[in-house]
Amino acid sequence: MVLEKMVSLGKQGVILLEPTSKNTAAAMTIAALEKKNSDSLLLFCPADHYIPDSDYFLNTIKSALPAAKDGAIVTFGVSPFFPSTAYGYILRGDANSAGGYLAKEFVEKPSETRASELLLSGNYFWNAGIFLCKPSTLLDAVERYAPDVLKSCQAAMASKQKEEIAANCTFVRPDETVFASCRSQSIDYAVMEHHDRVVVFPFGGQWSDVGSWKAVAELLPSDDVGNRIVGNGIACSSQNVFIHAGDRPVVALGVQGLTVIDTPDAVLVLDHKHVEQVKDLVLQLEAKKYTQAISHRRVARPWGWYDCVDAGERFQVKRIGVKPGASLSLQKHQHRAEHWIIVKGTAEVTRDQEVFILTENQSTYIPIGVTHRLKNPGMVELEIIEVQSGSYLGEDDIVRIEDNYGRA
Amino acid sequence: MVLEKMVSLGKQGVILLEPTSKNTAAAMTIAALEKKNSDSLLLFCPADHYIPDSDYFLNTIKSALPAAKDGAIVTFGVSPFFPSTAYGYILRGDANSAGGYLAKEFVEKPSETRASELLLSGNYFWNAGIFLCKPSTLLDAVERYAPDVLKSCQAAMASKQKEEIAANCTFVRPDETVFASCRSQSIDYAVMEHHDRVVVFPFGGQWSDVGSWKAVAELLPSDDVGNRIVGNGIACSSQNVFIHAGDRPVVALGVQGLTVIDTPDAVLVLDHKHVEQVKDLVLQLEAKKYTQAISHRRVARPWGWYDCVDAGERFQVKRIGVKPGASLSLQKHQHRAEHWIIVKGTAEVTRDQEVFILTENQSTYIPIGVTHRLKNPGMVELEIIEVQSGSYLGEDDIVRIEDNYGRA
Repeated sequence: MVLEKMVSLGKQGVILLEPTSKNTAAAMTIAALEKKNSDSLLLFCPADHYIPDSDYFLNTIKSALPAAKDGAIVTFGVSPFFPSTAYGYILRGDANSAGGYLAKEFVEKPSETRASELLLSGNYFWNAGIFLCKPSTLLDAVERYAPDVLKSCQAAMASKQKEEIAANCTFVRPDETVFASCRSQSIDYAVMEHHDRVVVFPFGGQWSDVGSWKAVAELLPSDDVGNRIVGNGIACSSQNVFIHAGDRPVVALGVQGLTVIDTPDAVLVLDHKHVEQVKDLVLQLEAKKYTQAISHRRVARPWGWYDCVDAGERFQVKRIGVKPGASLSLQKHQHRAEHWIIVKGTAEVTRDQEVFILTENQSTYIPIGVTHRLKNPGMVELEIIEVQSGSYLGEDDIVRIEDNYGRA
Repeated sequence: MVLEKMVSLGKQGVILLEPTSKNTAAAMTIAALEKKNSDSLLLFCPADHYIPDSDYFLNTIKSALPAAKDGAIVTFGVSPFFPSTAYGYILRGDANSAGGYLAKEFVEKPSETRASELLLSGNYFWNAGIFLCKPSTLLDAVERYAPDVLKSCQAAMASKQKEEIAANCTFVRPDETVFASCRSQSIDYAVMEHHDRVVVFPFGGQWSDVGSWKAVAELLPSDDVGNRIVGNGIACSSQNVFIHAGDRPVVALGVQGLTVIDTPDAVLVLDHKHVEQVKDLVLQLEAKKYTQAISHRRVARPWGWYDCVDAGERFQVKRIGVKPGASLSLQKHQHRAEHWIIVKGTAEVTRDQEVFILTENQSTYIPIGVTHRLKNPGMVELEIIEVQSGSYLGEDDIVRIEDNYGRA
């Protein structure tokens, strides 16, 4: 998705691909190492925050540039407006001339009583997890407080692989085995809590980390009785209900203070008061090997997406969408045959030595072991129904011979 | 389904097919007219009641045979064990020698207060809607209290169509247009409330009309904290919850006293106290043209079933199951082409002049307007994935040329 945006905006740059998740300390360290010979500042932003006013956000960042250039690690604090137990807090110290404050103390997710005290004191910000600093500033701090993390990251970056994936856009992959041995910790714990030159700039615009269903609900307007509905939800004799539905009707009858989430993967019915327990619940489901806890039925891919719409004992049905101009890898399978039926757009099919075009309502068959490729040569999205048939249908039965996205 | 059971048990008889639903007065009258020249008794049973002890039930019926032969309409009363507002009640009068009572009064669904009074009086039964009588007894009563219903039914049966559908099993269809003009009323309102020779026999066995989700839940054992779960449901920090799920996980977190129903059609989240409002809700959804209120995604057919697993702008994907030996009608479509992929079992395909066999992982294509038929010649169920492609995909785009189930 990032590559797609860069290409469409004509931007150049490096996309650093973590081989595995090792939390923010390692992720930020490899980024700083990639840019260690540069004078440019690094802005670290979580990908899943909702900040509607971009101009306000950019102006806040700009106001902090001098402090970052001067060698501080700048973090951005959101003014709390309710006693959240889901966020970390930052105690502000002395003000500097540019509108920032010394970050005096980091407080991890507090209890409800403590959260109220922090809110009422007026001296705390929510920790938004957004950081601005020079690469050298961060590397010096990591060396001081988490030298083992720096060492692992240096080793992983020493044997990194680079690949130009589009014009002036490069995928950089740290060594997988080395990176996997790195300690996994948040940058807050590993560095920020100990460092003496962290500066916090207040961010006064609207912000949500969209970190809970409560936060998702709050992005929506409610009706007269407090119901908030996305998609085909229906609330009858119900108040203060949040329904997140798709096309399938989701009906709440005679209930109060509930969140009901319907996705193709699972259904969740949740009392608002238990919203913070969802994370624990997901961990429990993971432990019980529920695949829904770790992956989705609809999966995004560099070339588009697929959705598993039906499955049986020795078959699986997928709807596959391919973006204009995109193509899947040239591949083959050892255990499954595939039937493709074009239901939208135009497909260019490679099958063994043949290359041919199929349009809506045409179909083809890919026997087991035959090299094949699906491409969208057209200007509109291509959609096909794929019926897989075989004794083993896992995603890992794939031999990639050639790939536009560096996966071969 | 009835035909299938009759054939497998080697029974013979008539299956009377109501062309449209006109409530119990008309349904029972056409049955009595079909058997009017016979001395045999008629037992009218709702199809959706749960009576686990068949022997007990049959013995109760047997005890009532003399009264029915003697010209009474016998109804069976269940001893109430909670003040239900969902059932009708019958007040018992004088006892007869065979263990029955004169039915003195029919009480429609009472209020909660009234239901408690009826229960505490000890003189009322629940009306189970099960009746036993001679055809002539019922016809005389209908003539007396609902002569218009009798007249419409007589006219509809005068031009009925008969068709032997299997060995000694006959489909009888009353005239559709005439039957459609018949007044729609329950036999209780139309006849029983007015008739002086209704006798009620107590039925003391376990009985449920499975008429609400509460009744469905009560058929299941509960865990220590009152949770009852069907399928892949998970109750966390929840009590007194009924979850009815399929393969997809349905999770309840921190809730009490809820019913959560997940089907391929829709999701319902319901406070137990509002269980009787579900019928009103369905009427509201019908009025709003929700197809889910009147039909299911998975549809039963005489030859098997189909399930609509995916649909888009100009296509639809169905999984179709065909029973061993069964076949769909010989048919064609004006607006859609079909791609068939066999995923289980063996298919005999008729396509225009050709007849050929396909097995697992084979496929075929039925162009628009081409006559075709799908048959399962094998001993195990046949399953295919059908991808329909075209500008109109409604079920009514079907021209039946030949059909084993009298639908051509």
